[in-house]
Amino acid sequence: MNSSGYRAHLLESIIPFWMKHSLDTEHGGYFTCLDRDGSVFDTRKYVWLNGRQVWTLARLYNTVERRPEWLAAARLGAEFLRHHVFDNHGRCWFSLTREGKPAFFQRKPYGAAFVSLGFAEYARASGDTWYRDKARELFRKVREWIADPGLLGRSSFSAMPATSQLADVYIVLSLALELDDSAAVAEMLKAIDVHHEPTRRLFFENATLDPARRTEYPDGRLICPGSIFEISWFLLKALQLQPDAAKQKMVLDVLEGGLEFGWDKQHGGFFYFMDIDGKPTLQLESSMKLWWVHAEAICALSHAYAATKDQRWRRWIEVVDDYTFSHFPDAEYGEWFGYLDRQGRPALTLKGNNYKGCFHIPRALLFSS
Amino acid sequence: MNSSGYRAHLLESIIPFWMKHSLDTEHGGYFTCLDRDGSVFDTRKYVWLNGRQVWTLARLYNTVERRPEWLAAARLGAEFLRHHVFDNHGRCWFSLTREGKPAFFQRKPYGAAFVSLGFAEYARASGDTWYRDKARELFRKVREWIADPGLLGRSSFSAMPATSQLADVYIVLSLALELDDSAAVAEMLKAIDVHHEPTRRLFFENATLDPARRTEYPDGRLICPGSIFEISWFLLKALQLQPDAAKQKMVLDVLEGGLEFGWDKQHGGFFYFMDIDGKPTLQLESSMKLWWVHAEAICALSHAYAATKDQRWRRWIEVVDDYTFSHFPDAEYGEWFGYLDRQGRPALTLKGNNYKGCFHIPRALLFSS
Repeated sequence: MNSSGYRAHLLESIIPFWMKHSLDTEHGGYFTCLDRDGSVFDTRKYVWLNGRQVWTLARLYNTVERRPEWLAAARLGAEFLRHHVFDNHGRCWFSLTREGKPAFFQRKPYGAAFVSLGFAEYARASGDTWYRDKARELFRKVREWIADPGLLGRSSFSAMPATSQLADVYIVLSLALELDDSAAVAEMLKAIDVHHEPTRRLFFENATLDPARRTEYPDGRLICPGSIFEISWFLLKALQLQPDAAKQKMVLDVLEGGLEFGWDKQHGGFFYFMDIDGKPTLQLESSMKLWWVHAEAICALSHAYAATKDQRWRRWIEVVDDYTFSHFPDAEYGEWFGYLDRQGRPALTLKGNNYKGCFHIPRALLFSS
Repeated sequence: MNSSGYRAHLLESIIPFWMKHSLDTEHGGYFTCLDRDGSVFDTRKYVWLNGRQVWTLARLYNTVERRPEWLAAARLGAEFLRHHVFDNHGRCWFSLTREGKPAFFQRKPYGAAFVSLGFAEYARASGDTWYRDKARELFRKVREWIADPGLLGRSSFSAMPATSQLADVYIVLSLALELDDSAAVAEMLKAIDVHHEPTRRLFFENATLDPARRTEYPDGRLICPGSIFEISWFLLKALQLQPDAAKQKMVLDVLEGGLEFGWDKQHGGFFYFMDIDGKPTLQLESSMKLWWVHAEAICALSHAYAATKDQRWRRWIEVVDDYTFSHFPDAEYGEWFGYLDRQGRPALTLKGNNYKGCFHIPRALLFSS
């Protein structure tokens, strides 16, 4: 699909689905557990997804067209989060009831990270500096929580190998880019090195700091092609700001390695989780084909092609586009199915849940067009 | 398969696999992350599975044949747990390194419950009363932790509906039967009532105490056919000790309801998770076919037939047996594959992991023969 095809799909199939079905005009915030036809099957407000949708809607308003309904919809989520998401310690709940009461706390920094992301973009859309300041404060806290998970009540176990998580590098890098924190961008361009496996041309999902312990446990051997695709284009964006030819070569090399390793030669599409040594994973859903993995692949390939004009990326885009647009979109009700089985059939009918929302697809289509 | 067929399969395919591949004669305890051929892909000792395997081996020794190698293998796990599983508060770790150092703590009572189960059976095999006393002490603690999850560091959220978990009823009932606690058995025969959905003939996995909130959230709507099968035969065992004709009728009715609701009419086998209203589940692996669900169905059907001599259970046994033994066993290396996709193909090659060990299959084959 070409750029204008992506843009049309974004504005005709994806965004209308969320604008029509996810807005809770009664209590604020967004429903994200939406069945195939958009009907709500869980009224909880999931914080990752509410923060992400604020980002998407504000970003559309800021960069595509200043439609008042997008700004109003972004405000619906931003104000709901502002009033309900913080606990007494300034941490973020993982989920809230429809009315905004705490439903679950997750001992991870990602909820706060996506609230920060949404607030930063909404501040630009609304001009309300409270959101900009809060986004920066949350970014500082997210970095503290990553450095010391005990602050979120997480235990650590000294007999297990210390690791760097690719998700942490990604989340800090993505916020650093949004908040123009060039020191943090530089740090993450260094932090990625410990994940690099040069022979296999991959990034480890959980990289042990001691290289000798790399493949001791399934966690250390874990490869998530979608994470590789997602962080690749953030790294390419970072390298536009802080050029480093050797690092760019490394990122493009791993992107290609991830595409080759992650592709299912038998049924097409990218696997969700893989063991670098081909051993079984502890995750049961490893062979499923997930929407975000494919959206991120398209986005990464678009960035790689834009950065290099190398035709090998165009060839890969054709392969991934062909699989993606023939398997994920739902022509009848709009949006994409999220979870296909290995053979490419929808394993669940849903369009959104506690992890799939209005984020990866619109972002990939926006940034690839 | 008839009784002697089950027994032969147990002694020729299942137990030899674990005796050959899972014993860590160097550090004690059992490896349970075993690939198709028995090779170890994760050296951690998972506590649920170590406790369960102690139970299985001691039970074989106590009830099938007093083979010294079964007792020695049971001791290998029992002593490893005795020395390594308890933290300073008398709680149990979820997993340990190969050497026995803490690797993870789960804020749930099930680790301790399976240690108690294993210790109770091992005490009978070994004659060592320390294990019997410890099993009883752990059972008391498990009940306290179920009543007040805050003792394990679990948060509760007052805006969410209070629920009874079928797993808690099951775990208390199974330990009460093993430890001859007739008062606790009687309590669980009452506690099951809140899970009962008489029109649909099912037990809710997470039953809201307020019936008006039953189907408000996906958690409340969740049906797990395997849990229904598993608790059915425990309830039938309990009802042999404390007869109650109306309750037995209810249990058999729900067993039949669960078999009918859980069966995949298109591809055969039982689903893992289902929504009572047919809405999507939040679990991604819902349509997979799992070993334990089918082992529990066979065990429940054997108990139902033994209790009633009603031919409808024989007809169901034929259907379940046919699917199970044509899909799960691995003729080449022994044991069963654990995780099939909806169409019945192994989705993972493994024979054991952090949740599949030497327990459900041997128990079902032992109790059905």
